[in-house]
This record gives sequence, C-alpha cells and structure tokens, in this order.
Amino acid sequence: MKKLNIIVLLFITVSFSGFGQRKILNLPDLPGYLTLKCDFHMHTVFSDGNVWPTVRVGEAYRDGLDAIAITDHLEYNPKEDFIPVDHNAAWKIAEETASDYNLILVHGAEITREMPPGHMNALFIRDASLLTADSVMDVFAAAIKQGAFLQWNHPGWKSQEPDGIPKLYKIHKDLIEKGWLHGIEFFNDSEYYPLVMTFCLQYNLAVIANSDIHSVISEEYSDPVYKNRPMTLVFAKERTHDALKEAMFAGRTLAYFKDIIAGKKEYAEPFFYQCISVGKPYFENEKSIYFEVTNSSDVTFYLVNGIPDAPQSITLAANGMTRVVVSKKVTSPLKYDVKNVLTGEDEALKVELKY
Amino acid sequence: MKKLNIIVLLFITVSFSGFGQRKILNLPDLPGYLTLKCDFHMHTVFSDGNVWPTVRVGEAYRDGLDAIAITDHLEYNPKEDFIPVDHNAAWKIAEETASDYNLILVHGAEITREMPPGHMNALFIRDASLLTADSVMDVFAAAIKQGAFLQWNHPGWKSQEPDGIPKLYKIHKDLIEKGWLHGIEFFNDSEYYPLVMTFCLQYNLAVIANSDIHSVISEEYSDPVYKNRPMTLVFAKERTHDALKEAMFAGRTLAYFKDIIAGKKEYAEPFFYQCISVGKPYFENEKSIYFEVTNSSDVTFYLVNGIPDAPQSITLAANGMTRVVVSKKVTSPLKYDVKNVLTGEDEALKVELKY
Amino acid sequence: MKKLNIIVLLFITVSFSGFGQRKILNLPDLPGYLTLKCDFHMHTVFSDGNVWPTVRVGEAYRDGLDAIAITDHLEYNPKEDFIPVDHNAAWKIAEETASDYNLILVHGAEITREMPPGHMNALFIRDASLLTADSVMDVFAAAIKQGAFLQWNHPGWKSQEPDGIPKLYKIHKDLIEKGWLHGIEFFNDSEYYPLVMTFCLQYNLAVIANSDIHSVISEEYSDPVYKNRPMTLVFAKERTHDALKEAMFAGRTLAYFKDIIAGKKEYAEPFFYQCISVGKPYFENEKSIYFEVTNSSDVTFYLVNGIPDAPQSITLAANGMTRVVVSKKVTSPLKYDVKNVLTGEDEALKVELKY
Amino acid sequence: MKKLNIIVLLFITVSFSGFGQRKILNLPDLPGYLTLKCDFHMHTVFSDGNVWPTVRVGEAYRDGLDAIAITDHLEYNPKEDFIPVDHNAAWKIAEETASDYNLILVHGAEITREMPPGHMNALFIRDASLLTADSVMDVFAAAIKQGAFLQWNHPGWKSQEPDGIPKLYKIHKDLIEKGWLHGIEFFNDSEYYPLVMTFCLQYNLAVIANSDIHSVISEEYSDPVYKNRPMTLVFAKERTHDALKEAMFAGRTLAYFKDIIAGKKEYAEPFFYQCISVGKPYFENEKSIYFEVTNSSDVTFYLVNGIPDAPQSITLAANGMTRVVVSKKVTSPLKYDVKNVLTGEDEALKVELKY
Repeated sequence: MKKLNIIVLLFITVSFSGFGQRKILNLPDLPGYLTLKCDFHMHTVFSDGNVWPTVRVGEAYRDGLDAIAITDHLEYNPKEDFIPVDHNAAWKIAEETASDYNLILVHGAEITREMPPGHMNALFIRDASLLTADSVMDVFAAAIKQGAFLQWNHPGWKSQEPDGIPKLYKIHKDLIEKGWLHGIEFFNDSEYYPLVMTFCLQYNLAVIANSDIHSVISEEYSDPVYKNRPMTLVFAKERTHDALKEAMFAGRTLAYFKDIIAGKKEYAEPFFYQCISVGKPYFENEKSIYFEVTNSSDVTFYLVNGIPDAPQSITLAANGMTRVVVSKKVTSPLKYDVKNVLTGEDEALKVELKY
Repeated sequence: MKKLNIIVLLFITVSFSGFGQRKILNLPDLPGYLTLKCDFHMHTVFSDGNVWPTVRVGEAYRDGLDAIAITDHLEYNPKEDFIPVDHNAAWKIAEETASDYNLILVHGAEITREMPPGHMNALFIRDASLLTADSVMDVFAAAIKQGAFLQWNHPGWKSQEPDGIPKLYKIHKDLIEKGWLHGIEFFNDSEYYPLVMTFCLQYNLAVIANSDIHSVISEEYSDPVYKNRPMTLVFAKERTHDALKEAMFAGRTLAYFKDIIAGKKEYAEPFFYQCISVGKPYFENEKSIYFEVTNSSDVTFYLVNGIPDAPQSITLAANGMTRVVVSKKVTSPLKYDVKNVLTGEDEALKVELKY
Repeated sequence: MKKLNIIVLLFITVSFSGFGQRKILNLPDLPGYLTLKCDFHMHTVFSDGNVWPTVRVGEAYRDGLDAIAITDHLEYNPKEDFIPVDHNAAWKIAEETASDYNLILVHGAEITREMPPGHMNALFIRDASLLTADSVMDVFAAAIKQGAFLQWNHPGWKSQEPDGIPKLYKIHKDLIEKGWLHGIEFFNDSEYYPLVMTFCLQYNLAVIANSDIHSVISEEYSDPVYKNRPMTLVFAKERTHDALKEAMFAGRTLAYFKDIIAGKKEYAEPFFYQCISVGKPYFENEKSIYFEVTNSSDVTFYLVNGIPDAPQSITLAANGMTRVVVSKKVTSPLKYDVKNVLTGEDEALKVELKY
Repeated sequence: MKKLNIIVLLFITVSFSGFGQRKILNLPDLPGYLTLKCDFHMHTVFSDGNVWPTVRVGEAYRDGLDAIAITDHLEYNPKEDFIPVDHNAAWKIAEETASDYNLILVHGAEITREMPPGHMNALFIRDASLLTADSVMDVFAAAIKQGAFLQWNHPGWKSQEPDGIPKLYKIHKDLIEKGWLHGIEFFNDSEYYPLVMTFCLQYNLAVIANSDIHSVISEEYSDPVYKNRPMTLVFAKERTHDALKEAMFAGRTLAYFKDIIAGKKEYAEPFFYQCISVGKPYFENEKSIYFEVTNSSDVTFYLVNGIPDAPQSITLAANGMTRVVVSKKVTSPLKYDVKNVLTGEDEALKVELKY
C-alpha cells in the first residue's frame, strides 16, 4: 500500500528555540543618545498578575524592548492562599533569564495606596522586602534610601479619581519638593492623562508610558491598531542598567503608544526629525513641485494646519514614503503642527519640511 | 488657545469586559450528536506551566472550546520553592470561572513517569491528591477508582522514545487488557504519531488531540497557518460534563489540528459530509458541467486521486465555495481520497461528490 | 556535489484555477426569501474604469456576490483615443464569464448628467446603445421602454452638491410621479447619505449600496476595517436574474457596508433576528443570570440604550458569541437600540433579547 | 428627537490622494551602488493583460519599486476586436504618471514567438511599432538598433518546454555570440529555473526576476507568504533611467522572490553582509557565549551546515534580531551556507559570522 505523504502537509513550520524571534522597533536614536525602549510597570502571579515572571522577559524580548521592570504590588497579594508573599521573588526568578536574553531588568515594586498618593512604582531598588512600613512616607523614604526612582502611576485612574483628572495633592507636592518624585505615567495601558504633560513640564519630571500588564501582552494588544504596547523611550548614553538609570533621573524620555508621542520638546523635536527625511524635488510642472518624505519609523505622523497653497494636512505613514505636491506659489517655509506629537497638554509639535 | 482633539485619534477601540470575545468554530455537529471542542492537556504555575489557572479558561473561552482539562504534573513540580505543591489547586481556582464562562472544566492530572508507561492523563477525577503512590500501577488503580478516563500522552515523544515511534510496552498492554486505557494522543502540540491510529483502531480507544500548552496559547499558535490549537472533537449527546464523559469512554472522537482530521471512519465520514454541500449544476456547455461545492467548515479539504476526465485534485477551502468543472464524458461517480482526513495510519477517507 | 533542496522552501502554495476561491458571506436569508448580495455600480476601461470587464466578474466571484451590474458612463468616455466607444462592450465581454462563474450579470449603464438629475443607473436593460439622446428625459424614457430599473447614484456627491446633502429637484419628483425612479444609493463607496432613508421611505424606493469601483476592489477595500465592499442585499424568491429584478422593483433591499445596515424596518428587523440566536441561561448566582448570544453573521451589532440593571450596551461581534450577565432585579424585557441598523434617517432598529 | 451619531462609527478612515501609500522595501544598497527594485515584465489591456497602463504605475509605486517596464506582446493581441493595436500605447499613457510618482518607466515590448527562441523582452527601446518583422532575427536586430537590452523570458515555461527545463538552442547561442542577449529570467511569477544560474554565470548575463503580471498585483500576491512580487535588484550608480540601463547591461543584478536571492556571488555576498550585523557578545557563562545578529532587511536568511559545537542551523528572520548561543569549545570561524541565497545552480552562498 502506498504511504500517505501527510508530513509535507503538516509540518512546514519554523521552530525557534526559547522565546522566539525578537522584533526590531524602528524608533531612531537621538544625536548623542541611544533610544532604549522600556516598560516600567507590569505584574506577575506574585501579586495580581496572571503569569510567571519569565513570561514578562519573553514578551519584552519578542517586542524588541531594551528594559523592563516587574513591579508587583507590595500591599495587594490576592493569591497568597496559594503563593506565599515574597516581594523579591519575581526579580530573583527573572534576573538570569533577562541577562540570557539581553534585556535590562530593573528591580521594582508598586507601592499601592489609596489616593492620595495613589500607586507609585519604586524603580532601581535593591530589596523590595524593605518597603513595607505602614506610613507611606516611610516607605518612600526607604525606597529613596535604596536610590529609587519614584514614578506616580495612572494618576487619573477612575477607581481612585472618579472624574479621571489627576490632581497634585499635598503629598505629591511634598514629594516634588524633596526631590523624591521623578516621573509620572502619561500612558497607562490604553488610558492617558493630558494634564501629566503640564505637571512634568512644570516640575521637570520624566514623562512615562507603561503597559501595567496583568494578563498577557499578546492578548491585550492583539488588535493591529495598537502596533505595540505602551512604552517609554529613554535617551541613554549606553545600553546599560546604569546609563538607563542616569537618563531616567535626568528626565530624558518620551511616552509612546498608538502613534502618540508625548514629552518635552527638546526630545520630541529631534526625535521627529530623526524619523523622517525630505527628498529633493524629483518632478515639477508649471504649477507644482513634487517631492517625497520618507518616514523610516514605526510612528505615523499626522501633519495639520498647513500654510496656504500647500497641502493642509499630510499623513506621513510609518515605514513609508509620502509624495507631496506643493504649488509654485508657495515661497514661505512649509510649516505644520504634528497632531500626534504632544509637547504640552494642548500643544502639538511644530515642524518644517525643507525640500 | 484651541484644544487639541487627540482623543478621537486615540481611543476608538471596542472594549470587552472579562475574557473578551468568544469565537465560533465552524465544526459541524453529527446527526444525533453535538460536536464538543475540547483540549484535555494543559499546564499552569502549579507544575511547569507559566500561567495562572484562570488564564486557561480565558484562552479556551476565546478559542470557542466547550471543555478543557487542566492537567498539571503530579510528580514534577519545578516551582515548589515559590509555590507549595497542591495537586487540586488549579481545579479549585478555575472551577467557578469556568462555570461563569460556560465552559466544562474536567478535573485532571498528569501522571508523569519514565517510559514505560510514560506520561498519562487521568481525566474526570475527583481528587488529584490521592494519585501519588510510588507504584504507577497503584496510581492508575487509584485513578480508575475515581472513575478516571486514562489518556496516554505523546507516546512517541523523543525525550522518551528517541526514534519518535510509539511502542506498546507490556504495561500498556496490561492497561488495555484491564480496560484501564481509554485514549491516546494522536496530536500533542505540533507533534503527531501516525501509529496511534493503528493502536486506537485495534483496541477501540479514543483518538485524541491536545495542546499540552505550557506557555500561552496566543503566542504558541500565533502563526495563521495553525488556525487553532490542536483539539479533540467529541460527539456527545448533550453539552454537559457527564455527556462529555460518556462520549469519551465510548470513543466518539476525532483529533483535529492544522486542517488534519484523524479518527475512526464512522465519525470522520459523516463529519466530512456535514461540512460540505454539493450544489446542483448551474451551467453547462457542450463539453462540461459546472457545479459548486460549499464547505461551511473551518477545515480545508484536499481531495486527490480523482477519476479520469474529472479534476485530479480539488481543494475545498474552508468557509468557501469551490467551482468544479467536470467533463460530460464522465459517467461514473466522482470519487476522491481526502488526503487530510485520516481513517487509519496510512488510509485517507474515501468520498464521493454527488452533483 | 550535494543538490540543494530549495524547492521545498519555495513552492508550497495552493494554486487555484481561474478566479481563485469564492468566499462565503455570512448574511442570512429571510423567511421566504434568499438574500442575494449585489453590487449594481462599477466601471471598466469602456468608460473611466481601469480594468477589463472580466476583472469585475472575478472580483465579485471571490467576494461571494450573487449579482453585479457593470455600468459604464454613457456620456463620459475619456479613453476614446485608444478604445472606440461601445456602450454594450463590457456586457458582451463579461456575459459568458459570469455564467461560467455562477454570477448573475445585470445589463446596465450610467446616465451621466449634471445635477439635476445627476447620475442615474439604468439596470436590467437590453441595449445601452439606445440610451444616447440629448434630452435626459428621452434617455430615461428609452430605458424605461427596455424595462429598466432606474437608480439615482450618489445623490449627495460633493462634485455635484457642494453641501453634500441630496435634494429632490423637480426632475426627480417628476420621475417619482411617473413611477420611473426605483431606488437610490444610500452608500456609494465610502460615502453615505442619511437623507436617502427619508426619500426611500416616503416614496417606497429601494435603499441601495454600491461600490462604484473604478480601480480594483482588492486595493480599494484592503483595509480590514471594511470587511467587504458596499453591497445591496436583495431578498429574492430565487437566485435568478428575473427573481432578482422582481425583488428590486418590489424594493426588498437593505444597504450594507462597514457594519452598517440601512433600510426598511420590515427587512431590517427579520434580518437582525436571523443573524442572532439567544441561548438559554447557562449559569446563575444569587445576583445575576448568565446567557450567551450567538451572532452567526458577518455584521457586528452595537446594542445601546439598555434598560436599568441590564448592560447599557452590548456588542454582538460578527461570527462570535457574547456573554451577557443580567441582574435578577430585571423583570421587564431586555430592549435595545441597534445603533448600526438604521430604519430611518435618525432611527435605529429597536430589538429585544429573549432569554 | 435625538440624532444618531453614526458618523463616528462609520468614517474613521485615512484617505490618501492618488495611488495611496508607498512602502519602503528594506533591501540595502551595496557599497558604491544604489539598489533599484525593478520589475521588467508586465501586461495591460494593450495585449492580454487586464488593466489600464496607469494601474501598473500605481501598483509599483505602492510596492516601493524604483523602475518598471510595461511589455505588452507584439504578436499576441486578443483584445483587438475592442482595442485597436498600438504597440506604444501603454508607454504613452503611463509615461507622465510614472514621472509624477517618481518611478522610472522603461519602454519595453515582448517579442512573442514559439520556442526557439520563445519570448524575449526588448527593454530600453524607443519605438515598439518598429519591432514587427516576420523574421524574429530581424526584430532582434531592430531592437538592438534602438539600443535594446534583450531579456529571455521564462525559458522553462511548460507551454513551450514541456519538461520545464530551459535549453540553449542555436538561436540563443547566436544571440549570445552577437552580444545581443543580456539577461534571463530566473524567476517568472512563481516559477523559477535553476539552470538559468548556469547560463548566466557562463555567459555573463544578468539574472532577472519579474512578475509577468497579467491580472492585478494585489490579488496575485495577496498571500503573506509572498511578501512581495518577484523583482530584480539592480545595483546602479544613480537612481536614473540611464544609470539603470548601464547597470543592467553590466549585469549588476540579483533576482529576488519569496526569500530567495539568486545571482552572482560578487553581488550576493556583499548584499548579505549589508543586510545583517553581528553584535558583540552580551553575556557568557561557563559553557557558552551569547550574541545577537540583527537582520535589518525584508529577507529571512536560512543558515545551515554549521560547524561542530555551534548551532547547526540559524534562521535570521527578516527585520528581526536573532540570539545565538555558541559553545566556548568553538575556536574556528562560525561558517554557514545560506540555503536561500543561490550563487549557482546548486550552490548556496557561504558566509561567516564574526562576533
């Protein structure tokens, strides 16, 4: 009897060892800095997350991140009937896997209190078990003693701020005054808080985007509209733990999610110009000049409010080239607002296309 | 100053509560039976899996399954430094969530020994903590006492059978003789073992397909070529735990993965004919007759070895209609082998298209 | 020397003869009627389209349509320097291919005038070359003489109605009075005109959706958000040219595009109920009752304005099952507005879920 | 009455003017040369193709190509009942659109004869109407007189070579001797001919890949497995018509389709090394050294036949990073064959990873 050849039908699949394939994120470096892609807020079975710590390493590796912090809740341990509380467990479990996969693992924990002050991540710590005092200010002090970067999480979370608007309470102002507050989440998962831009500009804090993932990244961000999880772009002098820490304390960050970039103009502006290049005119007729803008980044830019006789809006699609036709009547610079690059609560980045 | 309208840009997403959207699997019922889609082999943090038990319920719900068994290893507990061993923990944790999401949760455990006998799942048990004797036969006896269905897992797994070929050792024959072995995995993840068809036909055992997932379904089966995780189609009189159990012991199953269906002809044949319908000829010219075959199922069928003057092979694409042009010279029945429906180790289902 | 086995790497592709694979559209029949999926407006190189007529047959076949009309412009022939004008050419060229692929080809032409009356398709005609008089009323009369169904195209097209709002001019009212106007496009490509609902209800005209494709369907509707091209669902007694014509003149249609259904309540309501089925409650606890709604259609339905103590909104995803949790306090019927099923210019279909 | 807000539901789509968005192909330049992506074989309604010539420009623009040739058949005009024969029509119609979209349009025509010599494209011609003599050698002479590049199309096409194997007939040898044959298709659509590598190496001809598209690119290559249509990578000194022509006559090409690269080693080797970069080791333990290989190109490379103690095969996924773990026992260079980069009929490119 003739053997059936079903093997060919079945098993033409590429198998990867370990965590699979690492994606390249097209998010350019800035002059003098490497752009590290980071997620500083995530959970595991050691608080209210649903995965083992190494899963977070695998997800970040595939997503092309450079650094993550696992930040299980200190004060909220709903799985303790099955898993004894150990605030350093996730760190201990994930540390070697992270090294093995060329990922910077930042030691972190989430200080989980009612508003105010709400939830705050202590990042770059050494021992999370020491952050357990009753008084939250004592916990902050213990974290700062370990050299922590304190990040205020989801400041407008509706469970703690029913109107969704972040508020600077006295305790936040005290932290700022002491120099103990270093950054605030602009994006937390798919929520965002415009007012955070005002706080960060006023007090020179890092603008941050994190996933706060509890379940699984590939399920949570499966819709192609997301492209990636939320992430913080950190402009560091090297790709090392210490250089990352220096950059964070210096506030050299941008928040990034769903084609939105938010942060200080001094980083947003060069970032935009590193993403795009404007070609020389390749064609003209009596009325118009034609040129192309190449956007080599993963971010689609939406340019609006064009000058008269030029296109009123231009969409520079991610990883694409866009043909621009400008009337010969135009003599002044081609200026636009980049609608999705926010340099203030109500302020879009202003750019110029020089052809 | 004009407020920027970035909200529109950002947050047009459909939000689902809980586990999201449940998919409909187009896998038809058989006359007299409901087709339950089942995965009887998966792991959690309570052995060497990487997720919390409720994650398995969520995955199965979204995947459109009807029943799952969480089957953590009894003898292999690599996370015990962090999680105390509790063989019933996954069951206790997932039970209510399963009810809540209209999923049948089968209580199970994986008896994990060297070959022979290798790994065996005990399904439909009541208390996994009683399955811990040194002698594996004692464990089997304890399982059978609880009314267990015993399933031999990945019998040709190369870690235990270096040549990849399943072998019936004396212990397996003893189990069969006692009536203690009820089914064998034909598919385990992306491995499959053709010889299992011979064993199951000879000893009237259930042909089974399971994922044996340790990580995350959405990562493991993300390649579109997979369509679904491996699953066992069980032909039950009702959609209940007890009807499922009855059908399993009666061996009314088909193994399904990647467009391959494997099992007894008495189920494979009506399954195929429930998937397709052959339309009346809609057009003819002097040479040929034209008709369409509608395949309403998620399985693409590959028909080969056609008779003379008819198409030699026909691909009936999943959820599609296929136009068939047959010469008027053809007078005999339109017979084919369905290359991807296996009714024996080297035997494809034979079918006829009646137009 | 060892031969390289690159063939395996290269050529594992399924090849289809002819136009490839026909998709099944999950759009249910109504009691007593077959639901024919139709596109009555498209162009070829015989006016200002960019493809050969048989391309339109292939596209429609793959898209799972039942009927199309190729409707090249009578008065606009921009390619005449290269292609001699022949108003029946597209019909002659496509006719046999349509039969061969089990598609109903409706003979049509677009009467292309300034507003008023704008553009009108004459459908179900016999000879387009006879529709070429100077006076548009003479052309309408010639079409009616051939038994034509007259369809008013894109009545709010901004090139002809700068404010985008359709207007019933005297000539339209005259046509209505004579019984010569039979339908109006609610959708034309991605434009839609709510006021068309009012016109159609008032004068009992067919509500229509068409692509008006000039380029290529697979390019124009490549974004997954579209799902399909715009199409008219026609409720016919049989799948034949004449039954289709009868149904069109009787106004038994719904317009469908991008999860929007628009048309008369007498068709929209049974269509909705044919798409979904409400399961028996499968679980309850002290507070709530749980049941599932299965939506077997390709249309996602957005239910809003729920009664107190029930979910305020429910999304019934296409080809999915949706879990509904209702408080036991609820005693009245579970009523909703289906936001995306329009039975009037400002009226959503009202439905009830009976569990 | 409350107005329904269906607009939000409906029309959140990005609209592009003209031909839409141009894709960036990640296929690196070589030192000293720009890599132009070209398709030198396609048809329109002016022979047996199904689209208007400008459609070919739009497709190429979106696909990120730099140059195309429309090459309608000279001797085969199946649409002449409807379209008068004009061998330069496609060129005249497409010329300005190509300029407008920054695409190099090569004037071409397909000399369509029985085998031998089979089908040959004349590229870079000035007037296709002069290529119509009865004797094919006269036609070749007329083409050469216009400065044509002659390309032998699909030399193993089964309609002309039933065994699928290209053969150098006397007429081909004569052409080679005269210096009139300049290139041969290795890929034509999804067919390929390994023997073409031997011919091209022996006679120093350009290795070419073309689509020979008759229908529509977006339909023909819709399966993601294709990534792109077949294309010829031409290494030119500038992005101009004349620089392209110079490079073609100099034979500086690679054929590319479906992750297969075929061509002369002097181009294939630097192309591979421009695609990848090998990182410094980032981690080591007592047994192994860890480093990453970044592949910034759209081509996945399959490395096989590794040395002892190193990975036997490595898949360098397109636009991805691949982690490589090498035993410290390895002291010799890390050598591989790149299975999908062909530098001869049976010869894979040999490479070394220097970490």
